[in-house]
Amino acid sequence: MNNAIKKVLIRPVENMQILSYQEAQQLCDGNDHGLNELLRRCALAVLNTGAKEDNGLALLEAHPDFRVNVNVKGRGIQLEIENAPANAFVDGEMIVGLQEHLSAVIRDLLYAKNEIIDNPEFDLESSFGITNAIFHLARNANLMCIDRDPNIVVCWGGHSISLEEYKYTKHVGYELGLRRFDICTGCGPGAMKGPMKGAVLGHGKQRHKGARFIGLTEPGIIAAEAPNAIVTELAILPDIEKRLEAFMRLGHGIIIFPGGAGTMEEILYLLSVLLHPQNMDVPIPVILTSSGNHKGYFEAVLEFIENALGEEARQKLTFIHDNPSRVAQLIKKGVQDVRFHRKETSDAYFYNWNLYIPFELQKPFKPTHEGIAQLKLHKNQPPHKLASELRQVFSAIVAGNVKSDGIKQIEEKGPFQIHGDPEIMTRIDNLLKTFVAQRRMKLGTENYVPCYNIITENKGA
Amino acid sequence: MNNAIKKVLIRPVENMQILSYQEAQQLCDGNDHGLNELLRRCALAVLNTGAKEDNGLALLEAHPDFRVNVNVKGRGIQLEIENAPANAFVDGEMIVGLQEHLSAVIRDLLYAKNEIIDNPEFDLESSFGITNAIFHLARNANLMCIDRDPNIVVCWGGHSISLEEYKYTKHVGYELGLRRFDICTGCGPGAMKGPMKGAVLGHGKQRHKGARFIGLTEPGIIAAEAPNAIVTELAILPDIEKRLEAFMRLGHGIIIFPGGAGTMEEILYLLSVLLHPQNMDVPIPVILTSSGNHKGYFEAVLEFIENALGEEARQKLTFIHDNPSRVAQLIKKGVQDVRFHRKETSDAYFYNWNLYIPFELQKPFKPTHEGIAQLKLHKNQPPHKLASELRQVFSAIVAGNVKSDGIKQIEEKGPFQIHGDPEIMTRIDNLLKTFVAQRRMKLGTENYVPCYNIITENKGA
Amino acid sequence: MNNAIKKVLIRPVENMQILSYQEAQQLCDGNDHGLNELLRRCALAVLNTGAKEDNGLALLEAHPDFRVNVNVKGRGIQLEIENAPANAFVDGEMIVGLQEHLSAVIRDLLYAKNEIIDNPEFDLESSFGITNAIFHLARNANLMCIDRDPNIVVCWGGHSISLEEYKYTKHVGYELGLRRFDICTGCGPGAMKGPMKGAVLGHGKQRHKGARFIGLTEPGIIAAEAPNAIVTELAILPDIEKRLEAFMRLGHGIIIFPGGAGTMEEILYLLSVLLHPQNMDVPIPVILTSSGNHKGYFEAVLEFIENALGEEARQKLTFIHDNPSRVAQLIKKGVQDVRFHRKETSDAYFYNWNLYIPFELQKPFKPTHEGIAQLKLHKNQPPHKLASELRQVFSAIVAGNVKSDGIKQIEEKGPFQIHGDPEIMTRIDNLLKTFVAQRRMKLGTENYVPCYNIITENKGA
Amino acid sequence: MNNAIKKVLIRPVENMQILSYQEAQQLCDGNDHGLNELLRRCALAVLNTGAKEDNGLALLEAHPDFRVNVNVKGRGIQLEIENAPANAFVDGEMIVGLQEHLSAVIRDLLYAKNEIIDNPEFDLESSFGITNAIFHLARNANLMCIDRDPNIVVCWGGHSISLEEYKYTKHVGYELGLRRFDICTGCGPGAMKGPMKGAVLGHGKQRHKGARFIGLTEPGIIAAEAPNAIVTELAILPDIEKRLEAFMRLGHGIIIFPGGAGTMEEILYLLSVLLHPQNMDVPIPVILTSSGNHKGYFEAVLEFIENALGEEARQKLTFIHDNPSRVAQLIKKGVQDVRFHRKETSDAYFYNWNLYIPFELQKPFKPTHEGIAQLKLHKNQPPHKLASELRQVFSAIVAGNVKSDGIKQIEEKGPFQIHGDPEIMTRIDNLLKTFVAQRRMKLGTENYVPCYNIITENKGA
Repeated sequence: MNNAIKKVLIRPVENMQILSYQEAQQLCDGNDHGLNELLRRCALAVLNTGAKEDNGLALLEAHPDFRVNVNVKGRGIQLEIENAPANAFVDGEMIVGLQEHLSAVIRDLLYAKNEIIDNPEFDLESSFGITNAIFHLARNANLMCIDRDPNIVVCWGGHSISLEEYKYTKHVGYELGLRRFDICTGCGPGAMKGPMKGAVLGHGKQRHKGARFIGLTEPGIIAAEAPNAIVTELAILPDIEKRLEAFMRLGHGIIIFPGGAGTMEEILYLLSVLLHPQNMDVPIPVILTSSGNHKGYFEAVLEFIENALGEEARQKLTFIHDNPSRVAQLIKKGVQDVRFHRKETSDAYFYNWNLYIPFELQKPFKPTHEGIAQLKLHKNQPPHKLASELRQVFSAIVAGNVKSDGIKQIEEKGPFQIHGDPEIMTRIDNLLKTFVAQRRMKLGTENYVPCYNIITENKGA
Repeated sequence: MNNAIKKVLIRPVENMQILSYQEAQQLCDGNDHGLNELLRRCALAVLNTGAKEDNGLALLEAHPDFRVNVNVKGRGIQLEIENAPANAFVDGEMIVGLQEHLSAVIRDLLYAKNEIIDNPEFDLESSFGITNAIFHLARNANLMCIDRDPNIVVCWGGHSISLEEYKYTKHVGYELGLRRFDICTGCGPGAMKGPMKGAVLGHGKQRHKGARFIGLTEPGIIAAEAPNAIVTELAILPDIEKRLEAFMRLGHGIIIFPGGAGTMEEILYLLSVLLHPQNMDVPIPVILTSSGNHKGYFEAVLEFIENALGEEARQKLTFIHDNPSRVAQLIKKGVQDVRFHRKETSDAYFYNWNLYIPFELQKPFKPTHEGIAQLKLHKNQPPHKLASELRQVFSAIVAGNVKSDGIKQIEEKGPFQIHGDPEIMTRIDNLLKTFVAQRRMKLGTENYVPCYNIITENKGA
Repeated sequence: MNNAIKKVLIRPVENMQILSYQEAQQLCDGNDHGLNELLRRCALAVLNTGAKEDNGLALLEAHPDFRVNVNVKGRGIQLEIENAPANAFVDGEMIVGLQEHLSAVIRDLLYAKNEIIDNPEFDLESSFGITNAIFHLARNANLMCIDRDPNIVVCWGGHSISLEEYKYTKHVGYELGLRRFDICTGCGPGAMKGPMKGAVLGHGKQRHKGARFIGLTEPGIIAAEAPNAIVTELAILPDIEKRLEAFMRLGHGIIIFPGGAGTMEEILYLLSVLLHPQNMDVPIPVILTSSGNHKGYFEAVLEFIENALGEEARQKLTFIHDNPSRVAQLIKKGVQDVRFHRKETSDAYFYNWNLYIPFELQKPFKPTHEGIAQLKLHKNQPPHKLASELRQVFSAIVAGNVKSDGIKQIEEKGPFQIHGDPEIMTRIDNLLKTFVAQRRMKLGTENYVPCYNIITENKGA
Repeated sequence: MNNAIKKVLIRPVENMQILSYQEAQQLCDGNDHGLNELLRRCALAVLNTGAKEDNGLALLEAHPDFRVNVNVKGRGIQLEIENAPANAFVDGEMIVGLQEHLSAVIRDLLYAKNEIIDNPEFDLESSFGITNAIFHLARNANLMCIDRDPNIVVCWGGHSISLEEYKYTKHVGYELGLRRFDICTGCGPGAMKGPMKGAVLGHGKQRHKGARFIGLTEPGIIAAEAPNAIVTELAILPDIEKRLEAFMRLGHGIIIFPGGAGTMEEILYLLSVLLHPQNMDVPIPVILTSSGNHKGYFEAVLEFIENALGEEARQKLTFIHDNPSRVAQLIKKGVQDVRFHRKETSDAYFYNWNLYIPFELQKPFKPTHEGIAQLKLHKNQPPHKLASELRQVFSAIVAGNVKSDGIKQIEEKGPFQIHGDPEIMTRIDNLLKTFVAQRRMKLGTENYVPCYNIITENKGA
């Protein structure tokens, strides 16, 4: 139970106390061009830490009285928070980690609005412009460290997993921590939290100071995947595409735990980047790993990839079952290769400028029935193109399953109609059936009703 | 499985590299007055981290080839270690926390020998002399911090407990960590490790830097209760009595989890100090806490104490079931009282000089059949005296159960004969039967054969 | 002699290595909208440390081959510097303090251009807009520290003073250092350097870590008053007016040593702020102090102020002769009042938002013959207005004496014609004559030829 | 004027607050075996900082009411000081550097008595025992740092020198500071203070944190050569011989400025070590340096050494006139050789174990008429032997000039009679005459009356 605390006054940590009057005003401004509503939503998500629900909308509805105001006062600014969830407090004092998260929210909302979106310097309609904007956002959030060798491991995977799978993510995190890796995830519970908890212990045993637990989120998802207080560096990117790009540019290695359609979407995003001809020489170690009797997810995924995208795509992904120290050792080796490559190419350790991300992966993607109908799901194109098209299939399915916009569309127009090359269609169909059978499609659902039709007859390409 | 690493060279951390040639020689000296054998035993225990067995003797027998030598070289000393357990290493490098433990071992063995035992300045035959020696040992081990408010919570309890009980100790530790408490235990697994693991996470969420995890051990027990690498400050006291006194002088509050006869011994030691007339005004919060269906241990213990030692003794102990945040809140309040009292009486925050510990509790105690026969187990004496006598009963039982000396005596002369006031005898008998029923007497033993006879007939006091 | 070092590669310190490709390009861009020429000039000034000359123009002419380029490379950016002055190096390595200054130059040039001048968010045509811009510049330069009590002492005075006067500024600095004050000056030698050198020793004796030596400069003056390497925090404000405002907003107390017409200009700027009705309640301690036989400067200045601006103006300035510890003690008291006032009014410790600075003091002032002719130099106006007009007189004289623009105007149109109320004219005349007599008008000039005519006849006001 | 502060209570810094009751009692104990009188004398010297007089005896007589007591209280110990010199305070608070010095005094007096002198572990009648004791004293004073490359430059020279010479020592210190050297001197003013003051600025410009200013003194000299507050690490060695040995074992290079007979004594001590056959391969850079028109001192000294001790002795000393950066560069090179040699020979960086110091140089030397008469001042012995004998000559002259014991002897028995090989006698005579002519014999003395007779006739060796 997460009762509300009537009213608290909080000073943001360190530099975030130094706001101008104008900035404070923007944060209090409830109008459309003001930031108060965005601040309110993100702040509530941050303070809702430890709660079990993962429904962002429900969260806001459950706290209609939650308010945040910002005053410039005395030694800096002061946040006035009404009706905050009680879990965020210990004996009446807000947990320091959460205070830091609040400060991060303020920092990122102000910067994104004043220095990126409203600043004519940034051309957000070009690939370089977006990459440059992400660089500035990351720099302002202090995500880039000088004099630190590459050591950021990105962990992806389901946010709602079994206890056994969760323990395995902790164990992998522990082995990463013993090797002094920093962990970067998308915030939230499950495979996003386990590796961090494990790494804390590993770092402790190695007396590793200054470990980084980086959480990358965005206003649309933060409520559903609230950052755990372990996260030491929280950054709010403006949207899901910039968040994905930030993972690619900041991370030095990627570990993927079993998830559902969303994790599949991430794997396909990854492949559409890694398979791009311009990125042939850019090393990024990617390891898929599962434990116990959860081998089935990746077996199905890898079979699908090999068949749909080919052997080269399959080679980009290393699969390790039930061997945390092996996972950590391979990541270590892979990250050393990254370091060597950056050195060779004079690329920064802290930002993967070398990597080419096509503009179509940077643009916000809105799944519609029309869009889905036009996807080109056939092998008569380079694998990175097909991966990109396939990614949109899974993106649509995720939206149709859980996102409010997607659900509404399905209600109005019926299931998405997905068609293409019969062989691929059959394989998608099988993969999705496996997900349904493994109950990975939509959590807490006994009898899953698909939001899609897979049309396997030949379109006559 | 903990395979051996053939040979490694390790530099001790920080200042421990600065040894004189003479000190290095002492550490290599295998003769009786040398320190090599003691170093070997303690070092092996330290490196055996994470192993499950708790039998010190077996450990030494299992590693006959383990060797430690010390060279003065270049920028400081160098440890040459042969056949070290592989668990102590990650990818061929010794875990830093364990390197620190090795350094602590060296520091304490040298200091105890050269500056305490062989130095005529210290009169170890007087109560003050012993207290003064412990102060010096603790100071040399940097256990005393200036400018730090009282916040050391000592945790006692069984080292071999159920998973459920272990999780509860972690949860209590987490709540202590959220309140920025430092944890001090006797090293080893179970109730000694759980609170530390939990506190690490709590500290992390509060961004609490410089947290202290203090482990107090002694050469006779270290092999059986190897320090976990989380311990940031390890100290090797010369014997069990000095270790117990160190807990009392350094800690500011005590939490006791369920254990067996050994935990009962500690509770009685505690009471024989707390009930002493000279300590009437010295506040030390003591909380007993259990979880789930493990309430029975403390119910039996507290019933025995109330009946044998009286209501005042019972009042010294607060019992809380299944409420980690309440435990932490009460400790917080109690430690605030300690701080206030130290301030009032001008006593140091870092060493409880005020507390009187009678010389009989400071002297090494060797349980023998004769000694046991002479115990005065009747109510015709002040409660603190009776508590002290009772403590020796449980000390003897622990010895008879698990210590090599004790086991040998029992084999030779049969069970210890414990007699005294019939009422007390009956109550002891019941308590011990409860322990046996709860399988807390001797771990891993289906059919416990008592090492004692409780003689309940009237001795005619 | 300051020979040139043919070519060096330097990495900026810390975060300034993290530049985007676009920023690096701006810094290399030699066109009008690029920053290379500004960078070149400021970098040369920074590296010319320790040189004796104070002629900015001459400096640039003396180093026609000096070049700076910026590459994004490997672990961050790299500066490629050609023909740097040898004094900036020790055994071939650039002094670290100067590397930091270079980084500060880059930071401030980029930020001023991209985030202030080219960003429509800032309205530089309004008083609040300018104050807000200075706040942002100062924040970006990390000049504002949270959790630090007011302790910044601004020191003004001549940059070219006698050895005796210089030693006195060191002694005052030493006494400030013993009291743990931070020092803020306009960079350069003389009264700007002495207090810092003295304070270093005072801080050392008090083991005061993290002392701040703040240097505020601007592109137009930096070449003439190169920052000393002692300066730990260098900031380049866009122009002289913003630099003066930054002193007022960041400082907590002001000490003025003897100087010439420029110091007089600063005193009048100060008075036009302090005498403004809106600032009546804003405390700022101001101390004038001299030593040995240099009493005459302030005696003349104070006499003029008392007569021209009245007793209230005189009261704003405390004069202390030859008593460094007294100066420091009074500043200490005054800064305590500042702290109290900020607390009372909930104003930030790190930025004096409360202080009102009229827009006419914020606007860049260009002395012309027409402008000078229109000055209203009579008492028929509030003292703060008259102070502001008088300030422009001295600003013009400084320009006519030493600034290239001013010198040119005088050559073309003859001396500035300064007229007004006869009494004031007479007093100005006397004051200026005293400056001439004390050789404070133009350094190194035996026979000073005035760049002005004081017209003392009644204009018929 | 250094008025007295009636009474202050001071807490020692950091760990020195953690004293046992017994130690506090020793410090208060005014009896012979107690430490109060020694503490009183050293504390007074420490607090007398900045005073000009250099007469230790006079200092004690001038402060008969000065008292120090030590209480164990609350959070640690408390010093109660009565009638302390006012110069040690700023606005009523003791300068922090001096508080640290007081703590160092306590630390060293206690350790030397309890752990060295009264501890049977140390054999102070053997060469190794003394070297080992110095190692322990230095370790306890934290003078040995792990993970620090050799960089300690020892500066020797006169404590009472002209302003020009003093400035030169500052300039050399500045150049050492720019190269990040730590400075170690014998405390006191003149050539002991100048290099430290200069280095502070050099370190500041290089942003060199954690610079060390080591002062080695002893109870007999501390009153005459009070440590300057710049000294960050003060150590009180038990006597003059151990202090000299500490310089040799801790330093990595030596710079000698002009002085008088005492500096000559130090040079001869140095040569008797460096010329010893066992030390042939142990590198220690030694630079003599003077400025302006002070060349004469070293010219005379070097001429004497070349003639009396030979070319090899002369080669051990590098002489540089008026070139501070050259001095620093040569020291840098020499210290690199030291580092290389230590690495090669596996000797510690922080303690020169390799160096052999003959027992006769370690034993306290008391000059008496009989002892002087027996000196063997002829060339019929190895140079290191002759250097050692010659050193005693100058030691006697220093004693006869300024030490109370020596002065008394001269008053009673007339001048020391120094005889030996006529050539050497003549050279000594000339050298001493030069010292007299340069007014370096006894400070503040117009007409120096020698405390010795140089007997130049052949003794018939």
